[in-house]
Amino acid sequence: MREGITAGLVVIGNEILSGKITDANTPFLARELRVLGVSLQRVTVIPDDIDVVATVVADFAARFEIVFTSGGVGPTHDDVTMDGVARAFGRPMVEDPGLRRAIEQFVGSRINEAHLKMARVPEGCELVTDGHPAFPTVVVENVYVLPGIPEIFQAKLAGLRDRFRSRPYHLRQVLVREHETGIAEFLNATLAAFPELLLGSYPKLSDPQYRVRLTLESKDKTYVEAALADLIRRLPEGFVVKVED
Amino acid sequence: MREGITAGLVVIGNEILSGKITDANTPFLARELRVLGVSLQRVTVIPDDIDVVATVVADFAARFEIVFTSGGVGPTHDDVTMDGVARAFGRPMVEDPGLRRAIEQFVGSRINEAHLKMARVPEGCELVTDGHPAFPTVVVENVYVLPGIPEIFQAKLAGLRDRFRSRPYHLRQVLVREHETGIAEFLNATLAAFPELLLGSYPKLSDPQYRVRLTLESKDKTYVEAALADLIRRLPEGFVVKVED
Repeated sequence: MREGITAGLVVIGNEILSGKITDANTPFLARELRVLGVSLQRVTVIPDDIDVVATVVADFAARFEIVFTSGGVGPTHDDVTMDGVARAFGRPMVEDPGLRRAIEQFVGSRINEAHLKMARVPEGCELVTDGHPAFPTVVVENVYVLPGIPEIFQAKLAGLRDRFRSRPYHLRQVLVREHETGIAEFLNATLAAFPELLLGSYPKLSDPQYRVRLTLESKDKTYVEAALADLIRRLPEGFVVKVED
Repeated sequence: MREGITAGLVVIGNEILSGKITDANTPFLARELRVLGVSLQRVTVIPDDIDVVATVVADFAARFEIVFTSGGVGPTHDDVTMDGVARAFGRPMVEDPGLRRAIEQFVGSRINEAHLKMARVPEGCELVTDGHPAFPTVVVENVYVLPGIPEIFQAKLAGLRDRFRSRPYHLRQVLVREHETGIAEFLNATLAAFPELLLGSYPKLSDPQYRVRLTLESKDKTYVEAALADLIRRLPEGFVVKVED
Protein backbone atom coordinates (compact mmCIF):
# COMPACT_ATOMS: atom_id res chain seq x y z
CA MET A 1 0.00 0.00 0.00
CA ARG A 2 2.99 2.37 0.12
CA GLU A 3 3.72 2.90 -3.57
CA GLY A 4 3.29 6.36 -5.08
CA ILE A 5 1.80 9.45 -3.47
CA THR A 6 0.29 8.79 -0.03
CA ALA A 7 -2.84 10.45 1.32
CA GLY A 8 -4.89 10.59 4.53
CA LEU A 9 -8.48 11.71 5.20
CA VAL A 10 -9.74 13.31 8.42
CA VAL A 11 -13.54 13.25 8.69
CA ILE A 12 -14.90 15.71 11.24
CA GLY A 13 -18.42 15.35 12.59
CA ASN A 14 -20.30 14.28 15.71
CA GLU A 15 -23.19 13.28 13.43
CA ILE A 16 -21.12 10.45 11.94
CA LEU A 17 -19.79 9.15 15.28
CA SER A 18 -23.32 9.14 16.69
CA GLY A 19 -24.66 7.21 13.70
CA LYS A 20 -27.12 9.92 12.64
CA ILE A 21 -25.44 10.34 9.24
CA THR A 22 -23.51 7.73 7.24
CA ASP A 23 -20.29 9.20 5.87
CA ALA A 24 -20.43 9.05 2.06
CA ASN A 25 -17.21 10.99 1.46
CA THR A 26 -14.80 8.26 2.54
CA PRO A 27 -15.89 5.66 -0.06
CA PHE A 28 -16.11 8.37 -2.73
CA LEU A 29 -12.62 9.73 -2.03
CA ALA A 30 -11.15 6.21 -1.74
CA ARG A 31 -12.41 5.32 -5.23
CA GLU A 32 -11.32 8.67 -6.71
CA LEU A 33 -7.81 8.44 -5.30
CA ARG A 34 -7.50 4.86 -6.52
CA VAL A 35 -8.30 5.97 -10.07
CA LEU A 36 -5.77 8.79 -9.74
CA GLY A 37 -3.07 6.37 -8.53
CA VAL A 38 -2.87 7.96 -5.07
CA SER A 39 -2.58 5.56 -2.13
CA LEU A 40 -5.05 6.36 0.68
CA GLN A 41 -3.28 5.18 3.84
CA ARG A 42 -5.57 6.20 6.67
CA VAL A 43 -9.03 7.64 7.42
CA THR A 44 -9.94 8.95 10.86
CA VAL A 45 -13.36 10.14 12.01
CA ILE A 46 -13.26 12.57 14.94
CA PRO A 47 -15.70 14.86 16.79
CA ASP A 48 -16.20 18.62 16.23
CA ASP A 49 -13.50 19.51 18.77
CA ILE A 50 -10.80 22.06 17.92
CA ASP A 51 -8.06 20.37 19.93
CA VAL A 52 -8.75 16.94 18.46
CA VAL A 53 -8.88 18.39 14.92
CA ALA A 54 -5.57 20.21 15.49
CA THR A 55 -3.80 17.14 16.88
CA VAL A 56 -5.02 14.69 14.26
CA VAL A 57 -4.48 17.07 11.30
CA ALA A 58 -0.92 17.85 12.47
CA ASP A 59 -0.21 14.11 12.75
CA PHE A 60 -1.66 13.37 9.29
CA ALA A 61 0.14 16.35 7.67
CA ALA A 62 3.48 15.00 8.91
CA ARG A 63 2.68 11.39 7.99
CA PHE A 64 1.15 11.63 4.49
CA GLU A 65 1.91 13.66 1.37
CA ILE A 66 -1.65 14.88 0.89
CA VAL A 67 -4.31 15.30 3.58
CA PHE A 68 -8.00 15.94 3.04
CA THR A 69 -10.46 17.03 5.69
CA SER A 70 -14.22 16.53 5.32
CA GLY A 71 -16.80 18.49 7.31
CA GLY A 72 -17.04 21.21 9.93
CA VAL A 73 -16.61 24.22 7.63
CA GLY A 74 -20.04 25.84 7.83
CA PRO A 75 -21.11 28.99 9.69
CA THR A 76 -22.42 27.48 12.96
CA HIS A 77 -20.93 26.91 16.42
CA ASP A 78 -20.04 23.27 15.68
CA ASP A 79 -17.98 24.14 12.59
CA VAL A 80 -14.47 24.20 14.05
CA THR A 81 -12.39 22.59 11.31
CA MET A 82 -10.82 25.82 10.03
CA ASP A 83 -9.71 26.80 13.55
CA GLY A 84 -8.38 23.29 14.15
CA VAL A 85 -6.36 23.28 10.92
CA ALA A 86 -4.95 26.73 11.73
CA ARG A 87 -3.93 25.48 15.17
CA ALA A 88 -2.35 22.34 13.66
CA PHE A 89 0.12 24.60 11.84
CA GLY A 90 0.44 27.22 14.58
CA ARG A 91 -1.15 29.87 12.36
CA PRO A 92 -3.63 32.54 13.46
CA MET A 93 -7.07 32.83 11.86
CA VAL A 94 -7.41 35.99 9.76
CA GLU A 95 -10.14 37.56 7.66
CA ASP A 96 -9.25 37.33 3.96
CA PRO A 97 -10.18 40.69 2.34
CA GLY A 98 -10.83 39.20 -1.12
CA LEU A 99 -12.98 36.46 0.32
CA ARG A 100 -14.91 38.98 2.41
CA ARG A 101 -15.60 41.11 -0.68
CA ALA A 102 -16.77 38.03 -2.63
CA ILE A 103 -19.09 36.97 0.20
CA GLU A 104 -20.46 40.52 0.57
CA GLN A 105 -21.16 40.58 -3.15
CA PHE A 106 -22.81 37.14 -3.05
CA VAL A 107 -24.95 37.74 0.05
CA GLY A 108 -25.76 41.45 -0.33
CA SER A 109 -27.32 43.54 2.39
CA ARG A 110 -28.51 40.64 4.58
CA ILE A 111 -24.87 39.82 5.50
CA ASN A 112 -24.31 38.87 9.17
CA GLU A 113 -21.69 37.44 11.54
CA ALA A 114 -22.32 33.89 10.36
CA HIS A 115 -21.58 34.86 6.76
CA LEU A 116 -18.45 36.72 7.81
CA LYS A 117 -17.21 33.65 9.73
CA MET A 118 -16.85 32.07 6.27
CA ALA A 119 -14.28 34.75 5.33
CA ARG A 120 -11.98 33.73 8.19
CA VAL A 121 -9.16 31.36 7.18
CA PRO A 122 -5.75 30.23 8.46
CA GLU A 123 -3.12 32.91 7.72
CA GLY A 124 -1.14 32.33 4.52
CA CYS A 125 -3.44 29.62 3.13
CA GLU A 126 -3.98 29.09 -0.57
CA LEU A 127 -7.50 29.73 -1.91
CA VAL A 128 -8.39 27.56 -4.91
CA THR A 129 -11.46 29.22 -6.37
CA ASP A 130 -12.40 27.04 -9.36
CA GLY A 131 -14.63 29.77 -10.77
CA HIS A 132 -16.61 30.74 -7.64
CA PRO A 133 -14.63 33.28 -5.56
CA ALA A 134 -17.10 33.22 -2.64
CA PHE A 135 -16.59 29.45 -2.09
CA PRO A 136 -12.91 28.64 -2.55
CA THR A 137 -11.21 25.49 -1.29
CA VAL A 138 -8.81 26.40 1.52
CA VAL A 139 -5.41 24.69 1.26
CA VAL A 140 -2.95 24.96 4.15
CA GLU A 141 0.43 23.45 3.24
CA ASN A 142 -0.52 19.86 2.25
CA VAL A 143 -4.02 19.96 3.79
CA TYR A 144 -7.13 20.39 1.60
CA VAL A 145 -10.14 21.54 3.64
CA LEU A 146 -13.36 20.20 2.08
CA PRO A 147 -16.99 20.48 3.23
CA GLY A 148 -18.96 17.51 4.56
CA ILE A 149 -22.01 17.81 2.29
CA PRO A 150 -21.36 15.09 -0.31
CA GLU A 151 -22.53 17.05 -3.37
CA ILE A 152 -20.15 19.92 -2.55
CA PHE A 153 -17.32 17.61 -1.43
CA GLN A 154 -17.50 15.86 -4.80
CA ALA A 155 -17.76 19.08 -6.82
CA LYS A 156 -14.74 20.59 -5.08
CA LEU A 157 -12.71 17.42 -5.47
CA ALA A 158 -13.47 17.41 -9.21
CA GLY A 159 -11.84 20.84 -9.41
CA LEU A 160 -8.73 19.61 -7.59
CA ARG A 161 -8.15 16.12 -8.93
CA ASP A 162 -5.65 17.02 -11.65
CA ARG A 163 -3.27 18.14 -8.90
CA PHE A 164 -3.02 14.59 -7.56
CA ARG A 165 -2.92 12.43 -10.66
CA SER A 166 -0.25 9.75 -10.37
CA ARG A 167 0.39 6.39 -12.05
CA PRO A 168 -2.74 4.25 -11.61
CA TYR A 169 -2.90 0.72 -10.26
CA HIS A 170 -3.34 -2.28 -12.51
CA LEU A 171 -5.93 -4.72 -11.13
CA ARG A 172 -6.84 -8.33 -11.91
CA GLN A 173 -9.38 -10.36 -9.95
CA VAL A 174 -9.92 -14.09 -9.50
CA LEU A 175 -13.18 -15.57 -8.22
CA VAL A 176 -12.58 -18.86 -6.42
CA ARG A 177 -14.99 -21.68 -5.57
CA GLU A 178 -13.09 -22.78 -2.42
CA HIS A 179 -13.06 -21.32 1.13
CA GLU A 180 -10.13 -19.12 2.22
CA THR A 181 -8.77 -21.96 4.35
CA GLY A 182 -8.50 -24.12 1.23
CA ILE A 183 -6.47 -21.58 -0.78
CA ALA A 184 -4.30 -19.83 1.82
CA GLU A 185 -1.23 -22.02 1.05
CA PHE A 186 -1.38 -21.14 -2.68
CA LEU A 187 -1.72 -17.42 -1.94
CA ASN A 188 1.29 -17.58 0.37
CA ALA A 189 3.37 -19.34 -2.31
CA THR A 190 2.51 -16.72 -4.94
CA LEU A 191 3.26 -13.91 -2.47
CA ALA A 192 6.66 -15.49 -1.70
CA ALA A 193 7.43 -15.45 -5.45
CA PHE A 194 5.96 -11.94 -5.96
CA PRO A 195 6.59 -10.05 -2.70
CA GLU A 196 5.63 -6.65 -4.15
CA LEU A 197 2.16 -7.87 -5.19
CA LEU A 198 -0.83 -6.29 -3.44
CA LEU A 199 -2.93 -9.40 -2.90
CA GLY A 200 -6.38 -9.11 -1.35
CA SER A 201 -8.65 -11.99 -0.32
CA TYR A 202 -12.33 -11.23 0.31
CA PRO A 203 -14.72 -13.98 1.40
CA LYS A 204 -18.25 -13.73 0.00
CA LEU A 205 -21.07 -15.18 2.03
CA SER A 206 -24.18 -16.58 0.40
CA ASP A 207 -23.13 -16.25 -3.26
CA PRO A 208 -23.73 -19.51 -5.16
CA GLN A 209 -21.11 -18.61 -7.81
CA TYR A 210 -17.95 -18.22 -5.70
CA ARG A 211 -16.65 -18.14 -2.12
CA VAL A 212 -13.66 -15.79 -2.31
CA ARG A 213 -12.72 -12.81 -4.49
CA LEU A 214 -8.95 -12.38 -4.89
CA THR A 215 -7.52 -9.06 -6.06
CA LEU A 216 -4.00 -8.80 -7.52
CA GLU A 217 -2.59 -5.31 -7.91
CA SER A 218 0.53 -3.30 -8.63
CA LYS A 219 1.43 -0.20 -10.60
CA ASP A 220 3.48 -2.52 -12.85
CA LYS A 221 1.09 -4.27 -15.25
CA THR A 222 3.63 -6.94 -16.31
CA TYR A 223 4.24 -7.84 -12.65
CA VAL A 224 0.50 -8.33 -12.00
CA GLU A 225 0.06 -10.48 -15.09
CA ALA A 226 3.04 -12.67 -14.14
CA ALA A 227 1.74 -13.07 -10.59
CA LEU A 228 -1.74 -13.92 -11.93
CA ALA A 229 -0.28 -16.65 -14.18
CA ASP A 230 1.72 -17.98 -11.22
CA LEU A 231 -1.32 -18.14 -8.95
CA ILE A 232 -3.59 -19.77 -11.54
CA ARG A 233 -0.90 -22.40 -12.18
CA ARG A 234 -0.78 -23.20 -8.45
CA LEU A 235 -4.53 -23.39 -7.78
CA PRO A 236 -5.95 -26.95 -8.17
CA GLU A 237 -8.18 -27.63 -11.16
CA GLY A 238 -11.74 -26.45 -10.74
CA PHE A 239 -10.96 -23.87 -8.03
CA VAL A 240 -11.08 -20.84 -10.37
CA VAL A 241 -14.58 -19.73 -11.28
CA LYS A 242 -13.63 -16.63 -13.27
CA VAL A 243 -10.79 -14.19 -13.95
CA GLU A 244 -11.72 -10.50 -14.29
CA ASP A 245 -10.02 -7.20 -15.03
CA MET B 1 -19.42 13.97 23.16
CA ARG B 2 -17.52 12.96 26.31
CA GLU B 3 -20.35 11.86 28.61
CA GLY B 4 -20.54 8.23 29.70
CA ILE B 5 -18.47 5.30 28.50
CA THR B 6 -16.14 6.18 25.61
CA ALA B 7 -15.34 3.89 22.70
CA GLY B 8 -13.11 3.79 19.62
CA LEU B 9 -13.25 1.65 16.48
CA VAL B 10 -10.24 0.53 14.42
CA VAL B 11 -11.21 -0.72 10.95
CA ILE B 12 -8.50 -2.81 9.29
CA GLY B 13 -8.55 -3.42 5.55
CA ASN B 14 -6.77 -2.37 2.35
CA GLU B 15 -10.04 -3.09 0.52
CA ILE B 16 -11.73 -0.15 2.26
CA LEU B 17 -8.85 2.30 1.74
CA SER B 18 -8.72 1.39 -1.94
CA GLY B 19 -12.46 1.92 -2.36
CA LYS B 20 -13.19 -1.66 -3.43
CA ILE B 21 -15.49 -2.24 -0.46
CA THR B 22 -17.59 0.31 1.44
CA ASP B 23 -17.26 -0.19 5.20
CA ALA B 24 -20.69 -1.02 6.62
CA ASN B 25 -19.52 -1.75 10.15
CA THR B 26 -18.80 1.84 11.17
CA PRO B 27 -22.37 3.16 10.65
CA PHE B 28 -23.80 -0.01 12.22
CA LEU B 29 -21.60 0.20 15.32
CA ALA B 30 -22.16 3.96 15.63
CA ARG B 31 -25.93 3.46 15.75
CA GLU B 32 -25.70 0.47 18.13
CA LEU B 33 -23.43 2.31 20.58
CA ARG B 34 -25.69 5.33 20.48
CA VAL B 35 -28.67 3.20 21.51
CA LEU B 36 -26.56 1.65 24.28
CA GLY B 37 -25.54 5.09 25.56
CA VAL B 38 -21.86 4.57 24.70
CA SER B 39 -20.04 7.56 23.18
CA LEU B 40 -18.07 6.62 20.04
CA GLN B 41 -15.17 9.07 20.01
CA ARG B 42 -13.02 8.02 17.07
CA VAL B 43 -12.94 5.66 14.09
CA THR B 44 -9.72 4.98 12.19
CA VAL B 45 -9.36 2.96 8.99
CA ILE B 46 -5.87 1.50 8.46
CA PRO B 47 -4.17 -0.99 6.10
CA ASP B 48 -3.46 -4.69 6.80
CA ASP B 49 -0.07 -3.90 8.34
CA ILE B 50 0.95 -5.43 11.69
CA ASP B 51 2.96 -2.42 12.87
CA VAL B 52 0.21 0.06 12.03
CA VAL B 53 -2.41 -2.16 13.74
CA ALA B 54 -0.21 -2.48 16.84
CA THR B 55 0.45 1.27 17.08
CA VAL B 56 -3.13 2.40 16.49
CA VAL B 57 -4.69 -0.26 18.77
CA ALA B 58 -2.27 0.60 21.60
CA ASP B 59 -3.15 4.30 21.20
CA PHE B 60 -6.91 3.60 21.18
CA ALA B 61 -6.70 1.18 24.14
CA ALA B 62 -5.06 3.90 26.25
CA ARG B 63 -7.41 6.65 25.04
CA PHE B 64 -10.87 5.02 25.20
CA GLU B 65 -12.65 2.72 27.66
CA ILE B 66 -13.75 0.21 25.01
CA VAL B 67 -12.06 -0.47 21.67
CA PHE B 68 -13.47 -2.51 18.78
CA THR B 69 -11.51 -3.74 15.80
CA SER B 70 -13.18 -4.73 12.53
CA GLY B 71 -11.54 -6.96 9.91
CA GLY B 72 -8.32 -8.84 9.29
CA VAL B 73 -9.13 -11.96 11.34
CA GLY B 74 -9.43 -14.62 8.64
CA PRO B 75 -6.98 -17.39 7.68
CA THR B 76 -5.07 -15.71 4.82
CA HIS B 77 -1.76 -13.81 4.56
CA ASP B 78 -3.45 -10.40 4.78
CA ASP B 79 -5.22 -11.20 8.08
CA VAL B 80 -2.82 -9.62 10.58
CA THR B 81 -5.16 -8.08 13.14
CA MET B 82 -4.62 -10.74 15.84
CA ASP B 83 -0.83 -10.36 15.60
CA GLY B 84 -1.17 -6.58 15.66
CA VAL B 85 -3.38 -6.62 18.77
CA ALA B 86 -0.97 -9.03 20.51
CA ARG B 87 1.92 -6.69 19.69
CA ALA B 88 -0.04 -3.67 20.94
CA PHE B 89 -0.07 -5.25 24.41
CA GLY B 90 3.40 -6.83 24.20
CA ARG B 91 1.89 -10.34 24.36
CA PRO B 92 3.05 -13.38 22.37
CA MET B 93 0.67 -15.26 20.07
CA VAL B 94 -0.16 -18.73 21.39
CA GLU B 95 -2.29 -21.64 20.24
CA ASP B 96 -5.33 -22.00 22.47
CA PRO B 97 -5.86 -25.74 23.15
CA GLY B 98 -9.62 -25.50 23.64
CA LEU B 99 -10.01 -23.44 20.48
CA ARG B 100 -7.86 -25.91 18.54
CA ARG B 101 -10.04 -28.80 19.69
CA ALA B 102 -13.23 -26.92 18.75
CA ILE B 103 -11.84 -26.13 15.28
CA GLU B 104 -10.68 -29.74 14.78
CA GLN B 105 -14.14 -30.92 15.70
CA PHE B 106 -15.79 -28.40 13.39
CA VAL B 107 -13.52 -28.97 10.36
CA GLY B 108 -12.79 -32.68 10.70
CA SER B 109 -10.12 -34.49 8.71
CA ARG B 110 -9.59 -31.78 6.07
CA ILE B 111 -7.94 -29.50 8.71
CA ASN B 112 -4.89 -27.56 7.47
CA GLU B 113 -2.49 -24.76 8.47
CA ALA B 114 -5.01 -22.07 7.52
CA HIS B 115 -7.61 -23.54 9.89
CA LEU B 116 -5.04 -23.84 12.66
CA LYS B 117 -4.06 -20.17 12.23
CA MET B 118 -7.55 -19.45 13.57
CA ALA B 119 -6.62 -21.16 16.87
CA ARG B 120 -3.75 -18.72 17.47
CA VAL B 121 -4.62 -15.82 19.80
CA PRO B 122 -2.84 -13.26 22.01
CA GLU B 123 -1.71 -14.91 25.26
CA GLY B 124 -4.11 -14.43 28.16
CA CYS B 125 -7.01 -13.16 26.07
CA GLU B 126 -10.62 -13.78 26.99
CA LEU B 127 -12.68 -15.94 24.60
CA VAL B 128 -16.37 -15.02 24.54
CA THR B 129 -18.04 -17.97 22.85
CA ASP B 130 -21.74 -17.04 22.73
CA GLY B 131 -22.69 -20.63 21.97
CA HIS B 132 -20.21 -21.49 19.19
CA PRO B 133 -16.85 -22.58 20.69
CA ALA B 134 -15.07 -22.72 17.28
CA PHE B 135 -15.77 -19.01 16.62
CA PRO B 136 -15.33 -17.06 19.85
CA THR B 137 -14.83 -13.31 20.07
CA VAL B 138 -11.28 -12.58 21.23
CA VAL B 139 -11.05 -9.89 23.92
CA VAL B 140 -7.66 -8.54 24.97
CA GLU B 141 -7.93 -6.20 27.95
CA ASN B 142 -10.40 -3.54 26.67
CA VAL B 143 -10.12 -4.51 22.96
CA TYR B 144 -12.86 -6.55 21.23
CA VAL B 145 -11.59 -8.17 18.02
CA LEU B 146 -14.44 -8.51 15.51
CA PRO B 147 -14.48 -9.79 11.92
CA GLY B 148 -14.99 -7.52 8.91
CA ILE B 149 -17.83 -9.43 7.24
CA PRO B 150 -20.88 -7.36 8.23
CA GLU B 151 -23.24 -10.30 8.93
CA ILE B 152 -20.74 -11.82 11.39
CA PHE B 153 -19.70 -8.45 12.85
CA GLN B 154 -23.35 -7.76 13.65
CA ALA B 155 -24.05 -11.23 15.04
CA LYS B 156 -21.02 -11.09 17.33
CA LEU B 157 -21.89 -7.60 18.50
CA ALA B 158 -25.40 -8.76 19.37
CA GLY B 159 -23.84 -11.31 21.72
CA LEU B 160 -21.71 -8.63 23.42
CA ARG B 161 -23.95 -5.61 23.63
CA ASP B 162 -25.26 -6.17 27.15
CA ARG B 163 -21.69 -5.65 28.40
CA PHE B 164 -21.71 -2.04 27.20
CA ARG B 165 -25.18 -0.80 28.05
CA SER B 166 -25.07 2.64 29.63
CA ARG B 167 -27.55 5.48 30.08
CA PRO B 168 -28.93 6.39 26.63
CA TYR B 169 -29.04 9.85 25.08
CA HIS B 170 -32.25 11.84 24.91
CA LEU B 171 -32.72 13.43 21.47
CA ARG B 172 -35.00 16.17 20.12
CA GLN B 173 -34.82 17.56 16.61
CA VAL B 174 -35.93 20.82 15.04
CA LEU B 175 -36.37 21.29 11.29
CA VAL B 176 -35.79 24.91 10.25
CA ARG B 177 -36.81 26.77 7.11
CA GLU B 178 -33.84 29.21 7.21
CA HIS B 179 -30.17 28.75 6.12
CA GLU B 180 -27.51 28.10 8.78
CA THR B 181 -26.23 31.67 8.42
CA GLY B 182 -29.69 32.94 9.41
CA ILE B 183 -29.89 30.91 12.64
CA ALA B 184 -26.29 30.76 13.90
CA GLU B 185 -26.79 33.64 16.37
CA PHE B 186 -29.80 31.90 17.99
CA LEU B 187 -27.91 28.61 18.29
CA ASN B 188 -25.00 30.40 19.94
CA ALA B 189 -27.33 32.09 22.44
CA THR B 190 -28.97 28.78 23.41
CA LEU B 191 -25.56 27.14 23.76
CA ALA B 192 -24.38 29.95 26.01
CA ALA B 193 -27.42 29.30 28.25
CA PHE B 194 -27.08 25.47 28.03
CA PRO B 195 -23.33 24.80 27.71
CA GLU B 196 -23.68 21.02 28.28
CA LEU B 197 -26.11 20.61 25.36
CA LEU B 198 -24.92 18.55 22.39
CA LEU B 199 -26.25 20.72 19.58
CA GLY B 200 -25.87 19.57 15.97
CA SER B 201 -26.70 21.61 12.87
CA TYR B 202 -27.03 19.75 9.56
CA PRO B 203 -27.82 21.63 6.36
CA LYS B 204 -30.05 19.80 3.89
CA LEU B 205 -29.69 20.56 0.21
CA SER B 206 -32.61 20.28 -2.19
CA ASP B 207 -35.36 19.49 0.32
CA PRO B 208 -38.40 21.73 -0.20
CA GLN B 209 -39.58 21.23 3.42
CA TYR B 210 -36.60 22.54 5.39
CA ARG B 211 -33.00 23.79 5.09
CA VAL B 212 -31.39 22.73 8.37
CA ARG B 213 -31.95 19.87 10.82
CA LEU B 214 -30.96 20.74 14.39
CA THR B 215 -30.34 17.98 16.94
CA LEU B 216 -30.43 18.67 20.68
CA GLU B 217 -29.05 15.94 22.93
CA SER B 218 -28.01 15.09 26.46
CA LYS B 219 -28.32 12.15 28.81
CA ASP B 220 -30.49 14.43 30.97
CA LYS B 221 -33.98 14.59 29.44
CA THR B 222 -35.05 17.63 31.46
CA TYR B 223 -31.99 19.55 30.27
CA VAL B 224 -32.77 18.80 26.61
CA GLU B 225 -36.41 19.84 26.98
CA ALA B 226 -35.42 23.11 28.68
CA ALA B 227 -32.86 23.86 25.95
CA LEU B 228 -35.43 23.04 23.26
CA ALA B 229 -37.93 25.47 24.81
CA ASP B 230 -35.18 28.12 25.02
CA LEU B 231 -34.21 27.71 21.37
CA ILE B 232 -37.79 27.75 20.06
CA ARG B 233 -38.46 30.93 22.04
CA ARG B 234 -35.42 32.59 20.41
CA LEU B 235 -36.09 31.56 16.79
CA PRO B 236 -38.15 34.16 14.83
CA GLU B 237 -41.74 33.25 13.95
CA GLY B 238 -42.03 30.98 10.93
CA PHE B 239 -38.49 29.59 11.14
CA VAL B 240 -39.49 26.28 12.73
CA VAL B 241 -41.00 23.76 10.29
CA LYS B 242 -41.33 20.86 12.72
CA VAL B 243 -40.16 19.53 16.09
CA GLU B 244 -39.40 15.80 16.30
CA ASP B 245 -38.32 13.26 18.90
